[in-house]
Amino acid sequence: MPAYSDQASTAYLLAQYKNVRQATLDLCRPLSPEDLMVQSCPEASPSKWHLAHTSWFFETFVLAEFDRHYQPFHPDFRWLFNSYYNSLGEMPEKKLRASFSRPPLDAILAYREHVDVAIAGLLAQPVADEAARRIVLGLSHEQQHQELIATDIKHALFTNPLHPAYLAQTDGQNSADVIAPPLEWMDFAGGLVEIGITPNPADVRTEAFAFDNETPRHRIYLQPFRLATRLVTCAEYLAFIEQNGYGRPELWLSEGWAVMRAESWQAPLYWHRDDATESGWRIYTLHGFIPLEELSETPVCHISLFEADAFARWAGQRLPTEFEWEHAAAASSLNNKSNNFLENGKLHPMPATPAEGLQQIFGDAWEWTASPYTGYPGYKPLPGALGEYNGKFMSSQMVLRGGSCVTPATHIRATYRNFFTPATRWQFSGLRLAQDSKPTV
Amino acid sequence: MPAYSDQASTAYLLAQYKNVRQATLDLCRPLSPEDLMVQSCPEASPSKWHLAHTSWFFETFVLAEFDRHYQPFHPDFRWLFNSYYNSLGEMPEKKLRASFSRPPLDAILAYREHVDVAIAGLLAQPVADEAARRIVLGLSHEQQHQELIATDIKHALFTNPLHPAYLAQTDGQNSADVIAPPLEWMDFAGGLVEIGITPNPADVRTEAFAFDNETPRHRIYLQPFRLATRLVTCAEYLAFIEQNGYGRPELWLSEGWAVMRAESWQAPLYWHRDDATESGWRIYTLHGFIPLEELSETPVCHISLFEADAFARWAGQRLPTEFEWEHAAAASSLNNKSNNFLENGKLHPMPATPAEGLQQIFGDAWEWTASPYTGYPGYKPLPGALGEYNGKFMSSQMVLRGGSCVTPATHIRATYRNFFTPATRWQFSGLRLAQDSKPTV
Amino acid sequence: MPAYSDQASTAYLLAQYKNVRQATLDLCRPLSPEDLMVQSCPEASPSKWHLAHTSWFFETFVLAEFDRHYQPFHPDFRWLFNSYYNSLGEMPEKKLRASFSRPPLDAILAYREHVDVAIAGLLAQPVADEAARRIVLGLSHEQQHQELIATDIKHALFTNPLHPAYLAQTDGQNSADVIAPPLEWMDFAGGLVEIGITPNPADVRTEAFAFDNETPRHRIYLQPFRLATRLVTCAEYLAFIEQNGYGRPELWLSEGWAVMRAESWQAPLYWHRDDATESGWRIYTLHGFIPLEELSETPVCHISLFEADAFARWAGQRLPTEFEWEHAAAASSLNNKSNNFLENGKLHPMPATPAEGLQQIFGDAWEWTASPYTGYPGYKPLPGALGEYNGKFMSSQMVLRGGSCVTPATHIRATYRNFFTPATRWQFSGLRLAQDSKPTV
Amino acid sequence: MPAYSDQASTAYLLAQYKNVRQATLDLCRPLSPEDLMVQSCPEASPSKWHLAHTSWFFETFVLAEFDRHYQPFHPDFRWLFNSYYNSLGEMPEKKLRASFSRPPLDAILAYREHVDVAIAGLLAQPVADEAARRIVLGLSHEQQHQELIATDIKHALFTNPLHPAYLAQTDGQNSADVIAPPLEWMDFAGGLVEIGITPNPADVRTEAFAFDNETPRHRIYLQPFRLATRLVTCAEYLAFIEQNGYGRPELWLSEGWAVMRAESWQAPLYWHRDDATESGWRIYTLHGFIPLEELSETPVCHISLFEADAFARWAGQRLPTEFEWEHAAAASSLNNKSNNFLENGKLHPMPATPAEGLQQIFGDAWEWTASPYTGYPGYKPLPGALGEYNGKFMSSQMVLRGGSCVTPATHIRATYRNFFTPATRWQFSGLRLAQDSKPTV
Repeated sequence: MPAYSDQASTAYLLAQYKNVRQATLDLCRPLSPEDLMVQSCPEASPSKWHLAHTSWFFETFVLAEFDRHYQPFHPDFRWLFNSYYNSLGEMPEKKLRASFSRPPLDAILAYREHVDVAIAGLLAQPVADEAARRIVLGLSHEQQHQELIATDIKHALFTNPLHPAYLAQTDGQNSADVIAPPLEWMDFAGGLVEIGITPNPADVRTEAFAFDNETPRHRIYLQPFRLATRLVTCAEYLAFIEQNGYGRPELWLSEGWAVMRAESWQAPLYWHRDDATESGWRIYTLHGFIPLEELSETPVCHISLFEADAFARWAGQRLPTEFEWEHAAAASSLNNKSNNFLENGKLHPMPATPAEGLQQIFGDAWEWTASPYTGYPGYKPLPGALGEYNGKFMSSQMVLRGGSCVTPATHIRATYRNFFTPATRWQFSGLRLAQDSKPTV
Repeated sequence: MPAYSDQASTAYLLAQYKNVRQATLDLCRPLSPEDLMVQSCPEASPSKWHLAHTSWFFETFVLAEFDRHYQPFHPDFRWLFNSYYNSLGEMPEKKLRASFSRPPLDAILAYREHVDVAIAGLLAQPVADEAARRIVLGLSHEQQHQELIATDIKHALFTNPLHPAYLAQTDGQNSADVIAPPLEWMDFAGGLVEIGITPNPADVRTEAFAFDNETPRHRIYLQPFRLATRLVTCAEYLAFIEQNGYGRPELWLSEGWAVMRAESWQAPLYWHRDDATESGWRIYTLHGFIPLEELSETPVCHISLFEADAFARWAGQRLPTEFEWEHAAAASSLNNKSNNFLENGKLHPMPATPAEGLQQIFGDAWEWTASPYTGYPGYKPLPGALGEYNGKFMSSQMVLRGGSCVTPATHIRATYRNFFTPATRWQFSGLRLAQDSKPTV
Repeated sequence: MPAYSDQASTAYLLAQYKNVRQATLDLCRPLSPEDLMVQSCPEASPSKWHLAHTSWFFETFVLAEFDRHYQPFHPDFRWLFNSYYNSLGEMPEKKLRASFSRPPLDAILAYREHVDVAIAGLLAQPVADEAARRIVLGLSHEQQHQELIATDIKHALFTNPLHPAYLAQTDGQNSADVIAPPLEWMDFAGGLVEIGITPNPADVRTEAFAFDNETPRHRIYLQPFRLATRLVTCAEYLAFIEQNGYGRPELWLSEGWAVMRAESWQAPLYWHRDDATESGWRIYTLHGFIPLEELSETPVCHISLFEADAFARWAGQRLPTEFEWEHAAAASSLNNKSNNFLENGKLHPMPATPAEGLQQIFGDAWEWTASPYTGYPGYKPLPGALGEYNGKFMSSQMVLRGGSCVTPATHIRATYRNFFTPATRWQFSGLRLAQDSKPTV
Repeated sequence: MPAYSDQASTAYLLAQYKNVRQATLDLCRPLSPEDLMVQSCPEASPSKWHLAHTSWFFETFVLAEFDRHYQPFHPDFRWLFNSYYNSLGEMPEKKLRASFSRPPLDAILAYREHVDVAIAGLLAQPVADEAARRIVLGLSHEQQHQELIATDIKHALFTNPLHPAYLAQTDGQNSADVIAPPLEWMDFAGGLVEIGITPNPADVRTEAFAFDNETPRHRIYLQPFRLATRLVTCAEYLAFIEQNGYGRPELWLSEGWAVMRAESWQAPLYWHRDDATESGWRIYTLHGFIPLEELSETPVCHISLFEADAFARWAGQRLPTEFEWEHAAAASSLNNKSNNFLENGKLHPMPATPAEGLQQIFGDAWEWTASPYTGYPGYKPLPGALGEYNGKFMSSQMVLRGGSCVTPATHIRATYRNFFTPATRWQFSGLRLAQDSKPTV
């Protein structure tokens, strides 16, 4: 089963390639060339850089290695748009990306076109499995950068003192009169379970893709546990704030207490006090500022691991481990209509709806877990420069699971591991509560 | 003379206004909207911001006070484009200017047009002296920002890893085969001399303008001194480098030694080692990189006060005081053909030419002096918010004199005082040597 | 079995108390009051502060709660010598400890005496279990600070430009002519194993003590693995340095690469280049500087997790997890004569000796593991302020196991978990290699 | 007149030497070896270091060059106790001085004794003029360090959370019931005046000493001006605070406003809010905390240049230049009984008393001037390493004049120039108001 040994397969892959690449451009359509220049925090990059770097990825890892007729678009782009792959040589410091007024946007768009034409040419006939594998990886990579574009531009527009919206809110998007169902608990028996995935090396289809950090599938032992059926809401988080959650050191990890005070955090990122609102707060979204009272049933997001952990302790609960989460999520439906992903255009978490089972497992907001990001037993990074993709970040980061409202729908899965340092807040990151199962009599 | 009580005078002022405003736009013509977004160091601002702020200045200090029919272009612009006038209320932090993708360039250009139309309307008839005085101040202000645009965009394009040029070099601009005349000394007897200017409050013509920090004219006593007839060249500065000037603490002020080592300076800003050149160095200019050997007779620039001072000590000389400089400059011709200002388009200091008297007093490169920036005896800042223009910066800064190759020709004069902290290098700043007069027998 | 309900038990506890308390004083005997003042890095405290804080611990958690006749030595000491227990109120910033010239050393020694007398009085008769439990905790706490005194004073004396020794080296301590046995591997089958400890609440003997972070005992699943039979030596680490280990980014975690370059690390802490030695290096020890060639067979120590991890990758191996380590250590003998702990006075790791089984599991050098420091399933911190002892540090830290040459012998055990941020180097921290078991045919 | 060519002169110099050296020891008498270790801010050094460094100065600049029989006390001391003389080679970083537990205090005292014996031997017979000149310089140097000991130990004891006093207050020291005379103005006509001093090189007596930065005597031109007859009091400064002086940007230099807000200054250093006092404030002094109401008539001190300047602007006045101050001080009596210097033991500024002429010109508190610290016309630093004493600090510092309550009486004179960066507050620094003379009709 070398999947791409025939033209039907390559045609299917090319169709997927075109969809993903187009989605990146679609995301940038509401933005001007000037918007695409802004880099407003160390975590973020200008959107224009994302447009270029995603093309660089295909050029570097696919075309330069598997298309012997390929002519690089520009010799400098090879190092200019390298993000962090030391094995490929020197690259510009990340903070310099804000100075990339040249190449101009037109050149970057031409670069994308150049790469797209070459990939289409390559896929006009059967290709080596490894080439197909790299293209599939490149599509997942591009989807990650789609999410980063949404995340980074939200921060960029928020940083602008005028706080412009990315898109005006459309009818029916308002969730002001929805009430989230009460928080309930679902029990899991634990025991010896399997986590992660061991891909079939012969199956190079998009649908079979997983990052190296999800591998290999392996056994772990879980104690019995319970998960909340939905995410924590803004209303619940507001109660934590109002009951002095940010003023009680016993609720916080020591590092979190120090960071929170050094940064003067008093609420999630994007929450601003506003006496003109009923709740006393307004929240910046990709649709601009919205009074908190209109978002109170939506999942809280843009909180750090430290805030998620302090909230859970305040609530008398805890965060789930990534293994508890994955074990539970493996039984949850994905890609059903109710998942709130990038494609549905909400661009903000939506309230849970009354339903059986775990809600909001996929989409809405990334869920901080209690698990530091490490390699699974037997973990092997990809060979060569691609080994730098995931493995070298396995220190001082925590795992998040489940994707968010700006994650592309085909990007996420139960075994998917996202990771950020515990003070990170610019992501759409929220939390789901967990607890140990009560002993039954 | 109240100069603007008649239409001939206002018409003349309006013509000047149009010239200066147009020159700002001309300066930005080689730049894209993306280029205009870049802010590459704490000293600099995006050029787009300069375009807006200079219009804000006329709107705030002229139109809002003297044109009772004036409608502000946008209510937010009043605080958005305030630079540092605390008396006018809050303003965005300087570092946030890089996030101003909105308002878009088109809006900024419309803002400029809106202000220009209003000023033209105001000057269609005689105006109050204070209104005219403010317009004249606004034109000097705009010229300062023209120089800043040139300085900031040089840094912005240099920061881009591709190091693009602002403009390609044109024929005849090359100074590779010119030899600067030998350094000679001109003697000044000193004694009781007058420094500064006391403007005639009734004379509001552009030609009579001076900043408050140049006032009042007052007596000081000078010892006899000598000034070098030209600026220090790159070739001379290279000798300082090659004789370990950056490695000998006894040549440096203590603060300079600390800064130089912390910043790892080994040469002026924009000098890069390049073994492919004859000299071993290339220098970034607004025309891109040029081998040092082609610029060796041009004045060294982009050095800090610390480097200027260390060079002078190494040379067995010293820097002039700002009073020695002004006393000497008062007798020098200004605006003659040989002065290298912004308008002649060289955009880089040019070699001195054999001639009588002091060369390069005006234009080419700002000259660091040994004088800290303080208020003259009897100094009074302008009343109100305009008092923040100059006075509040009178600490920890050093005076520079004479203008540079990116100073507009009509902006400079013998009494003009520029000032920066002693570690500043992003300006076109060089030096002229001085010494005490030898006692004559 | 409430162990302290009778006088025989309390007498035994008091004897242990006296031993531990005396050991702290013994450790400070080679030091002057001035030495006891030095705080040379953010991780460290002055030894005088350790002397006071350990007494504060007994006063605060034992005497103030269980001795109703107790008179505090000084009312200010209650907050002055609080380390980090927010629940008990405000405390001085850690960095201020270097300013504690008052109270003078004499007062601190009187404070110790005052507390010792009160504890002896309390233990003159049977005490409540919780009081005994707290005293036992206080003894483990004091032993931790003994190790910190040794670690901190090493850094303090090293920081002094004269680099004085803590103690002169005595005869027979030199390990120059010992050869460590070759590195061999021991196999472990893995499977479902138990980790941690669930103390019997009724057993309050010292011998039964464990910190809350070692609890509860719980099941985990281990893949088959192998451990090196001894620690990595200085000679082996030198090979890593000489083969450009600090210059190859592919060997390093991304965070480690950044830290290592920012801090200009080129070798373990305390290694200095010295051309006068055969090896080109000398190493600072508590006995002063010693040429590397005399220590080449001793375990490398004072390395960060990042260096340990990079070395392991360079060697084609990996670090063990803390669970692999504990599973292996549980079968190793502890407290045998060969363990190199604080009491044997070597004050530096010693070479392994030829023997069966795992060598150097306990003592010599803490072993960095691949495990981030988190709470075990069902982990509950101690109630009240003592809950801050361990739990609030469970972020961004890595687990170390096994104790070092400055760990008191009765302090360590197989379930014991130490933890530091991955960039920490001032501890006696080294590494043991691990690998996945090869599949057998 | 080579003053030291005979034994009477050297005997007189030796007597002075002994007095000054003894005064340093006297100052340290209330302090323990632990107190002498504390270094509580970057400006300060441990007192023990001052004891050593002042001896090092005589050893290095006198004994090593002029006593051919001199045996250095310890070879390492040559670099260990070098402060900032780069010409003499490497030295420890200033911040490391807190780690100098070794050499112990006893060794430092023996070092002092060793140097004292050698100097006494040298002065047992006539010496070269240059040797005498160096000894005189060394005595002025030692007096500067006496002032630094008082200043540094004040900060050190204040930093200790217990805030112990250096000395208990003695009877009659309290100034609670004294009322300072009203602030009046004294007029000066200005004109061509002489500033500074040109020493007679043949006169090497202590009484003739001046630092190189006071030379040469030279002419300057002064506009007419007025000086306040006394220093600004705490009561007057409190009014500035209570009228929102720290909240009005228009009163502050731009750099001062930024520093003040970054450092959260709301009052002078050592002022603490205390609701238990009548005034709402208490002030830490070398005698411990004292309610502000008991010090309200004493001169305000421990303020930065920025605060002095803002106060003056708030009061509608300005700071004097150093030349105005010197011109006025040259006519004031020095060393009369009313001057409050170190020797009178008050250790804090005292209220002015009703009297003719300028009060508090010498002693009480250093007076910030409006003058940046620069070299006088024709200034030449001392040759060799001693040239680093003053000259290399001539950037970004402001001149203070007149000495303080911890300046030794024989150390100060009208031409004396002290200098610190404008944000400095750990010195006993206050202010005297000045204004331009009103034009007479």
